Amino acid sequence: MKLKFKPIEFINNHIRIIDQTALPVKLKYIEIKDYKRLGTAIKNMELRGAPLIGVAAAYGLVLGTINFNKNNFDKFHMRFKDVKEYLASTRPTAVNLFYALKRMENVLLENNLEKISFVKKKLKNEADKIYKEDLELSQKIGDYGSRLIRNNDVILTHCNAGGLATSGLGTALAVLFTAKAQNKKFSVFVGETRPLLQGARLTAWELLKYNIDTTLICDNMAAHTIKTKNVNKIIVGADRIAKNGDTANKIGTYNLAILAKYHKVPFYVAAPSTTFDFSIKNGDFIPIEERKKEEILNFLGNRTTPLKVNTFNPAFDIIPNNLITGFITNAGILPHPFSKSFKKLS
Amino acid sequence: MKLKFKPIEFINNHIRIIDQTALPVKLKYIEIKDYKRLGTAIKNMELRGAPLIGVAAAYGLVLGTINFNKNNFDKFHMRFKDVKEYLASTRPTAVNLFYALKRMENVLLENNLEKISFVKKKLKNEADKIYKEDLELSQKIGDYGSRLIRNNDVILTHCNAGGLATSGLGTALAVLFTAKAQNKKFSVFVGETRPLLQGARLTAWELLKYNIDTTLICDNMAAHTIKTKNVNKIIVGADRIAKNGDTANKIGTYNLAILAKYHKVPFYVAAPSTTFDFSIKNGDFIPIEERKKEEILNFLGNRTTPLKVNTFNPAFDIIPNNLITGFITNAGILPHPFSKSFKKLS
Repeated sequence: MKLKFKPIEFINNHIRIIDQTALPVKLKYIEIKDYKRLGTAIKNMELRGAPLIGVAAAYGLVLGTINFNKNNFDKFHMRFKDVKEYLASTRPTAVNLFYALKRMENVLLENNLEKISFVKKKLKNEADKIYKEDLELSQKIGDYGSRLIRNNDVILTHCNAGGLATSGLGTALAVLFTAKAQNKKFSVFVGETRPLLQGARLTAWELLKYNIDTTLICDNMAAHTIKTKNVNKIIVGADRIAKNGDTANKIGTYNLAILAKYHKVPFYVAAPSTTFDFSIKNGDFIPIEERKKEEILNFLGNRTTPLKVNTFNPAFDIIPNNLITGFITNAGILPHPFSKSFKKLS
Repeated sequence: MKLKFKPIEFINNHIRIIDQTALPVKLKYIEIKDYKRLGTAIKNMELRGAPLIGVAAAYGLVLGTINFNKNNFDKFHMRFKDVKEYLASTRPTAVNLFYALKRMENVLLENNLEKISFVKKKLKNEADKIYKEDLELSQKIGDYGSRLIRNNDVILTHCNAGGLATSGLGTALAVLFTAKAQNKKFSVFVGETRPLLQGARLTAWELLKYNIDTTLICDNMAAHTIKTKNVNKIIVGADRIAKNGDTANKIGTYNLAILAKYHKVPFYVAAPSTTFDFSIKNGDFIPIEERKKEEILNFLGNRTTPLKVNTFNPAFDIIPNNLITGFITNAGILPHPFSKSFKKLS
């Protein structure tokens, strides 16, 4: 499928990203020439979405080592490690970040006897590969997932698991874009996703770009919407999936999984193999990022509450595996028991 | 208990209300001299909360007929009906509005042989009575409900069922204010309550005024908060309760009731007898107000989403009776089976 926008590109030795904090009011690009600026972009969520953070981190390693001109592997490796550690510190939950950093380091180590100029070329190639693979993963997720979509489906999604969360096609939204390209008729409800409104700002923008019938709700309207609008599928993305299928995703997803169970609506998680973390036994071991108070105390610059109030601002929650109907992945749709179906991913 | 603020007062032939849209940034009063302005205040939610809407409507009938100077009952009744119909049209869900209007009309009809000046006095007395009774109902709700509160309780509430929703003490929050006055130690999480943020703006403000340990969350954080912060009670208000116990309350309450059931947390609805509507068999017959698109497309004046997106903006949802542990009322705590316990209310 042809991309309608490119959330990330590596051009002329710098990274160009869409500023996701400016959408949907403005489609604005940021030119990034320094890996620390990339780190800030990840922290501030100018760029977000687990798969895209992985791709960005790979390019960040290229950017952070591109100007290293001595032909000394150990010193190059030290620089590489500095950049890697900095990028690893930006956000804790999405595993794609650590996956991409690790994969880039493996390429570095495999080429420890080569000239630095060659190593740098190899690193750039690997980052390009991670980018392209991510696109292919999205495409496969779209192909497999679209088989689940029927005419007249009413689908609920949360946050942004779209092109903007990946190299360009998405995970949960890749399923919808692909089904739309197949001329299936369906409608989508999207929760606005407080506090940062990725659903309202990004997902609504993407779905409209693909001419999909889209209705925005506030997150707390989900139960009433499921019940009164006959929602018959919930599809979300993921930031990290543990070995047993417990899944971390944007805060609010656990709510939806419980509502899905109560209303007997299938609940799918769409994610590429890069989001699965088989080193982690279950959801209890996934670190949950807590973000700053200001995201809740204010809203787009306006104060919403007395400043003295305490806040709790977890960016993710954990969906226990038993609330998940199946995973829509690049290796197919993986049903229960996950201990068996996850084998397709390796 | 001494009130910390007065959401409504009738002074010198006009109504003074707290402008609830200006809180918590400003504590601002609006002086209302015209019943149509009162209607606008109800529609725009400068004044809101089911019991308070009832009290305001009673005073609105006084305001709308106060300047009628002919001594002709039929003409006075016609004027009364015009005002009543206008006020009845402001918001459809809260039954307290219709309860208060009906009660005022009964007083009018009982005095159909009296002088108009006397009828007007009677109406003013009845409105004062509704106001005072509402305060007493709140106090009783607080007394009964506080018996449920234990040291170290972690309580979740939604929207604003506080002083600002009533004559001044609240329903769900009356329980908390009373327990606090009894020196019980507990903490409260409050959902911000999109789209109009009554939780963030009003409930947080009230709880801090009573020095209660208060933490604000976004609505979609409820499931994660219940699970990880050991929430052990959910207490909310109500806008209308049907004969079988099905309850309409602020959008998002149905979500919480499902989350409560899943996490085995008791779920209480605090409401005065004036919020029960025994003329309605079950929740299917409670009209749900849908409010304007702009509440979702914008947030405190800032655009949040593409303007072309559809929206769904129900102001309330219905909690089925089987998800409710019990009702905290002025007649005591009413458990299942409600067909039996509701008899205490009549």
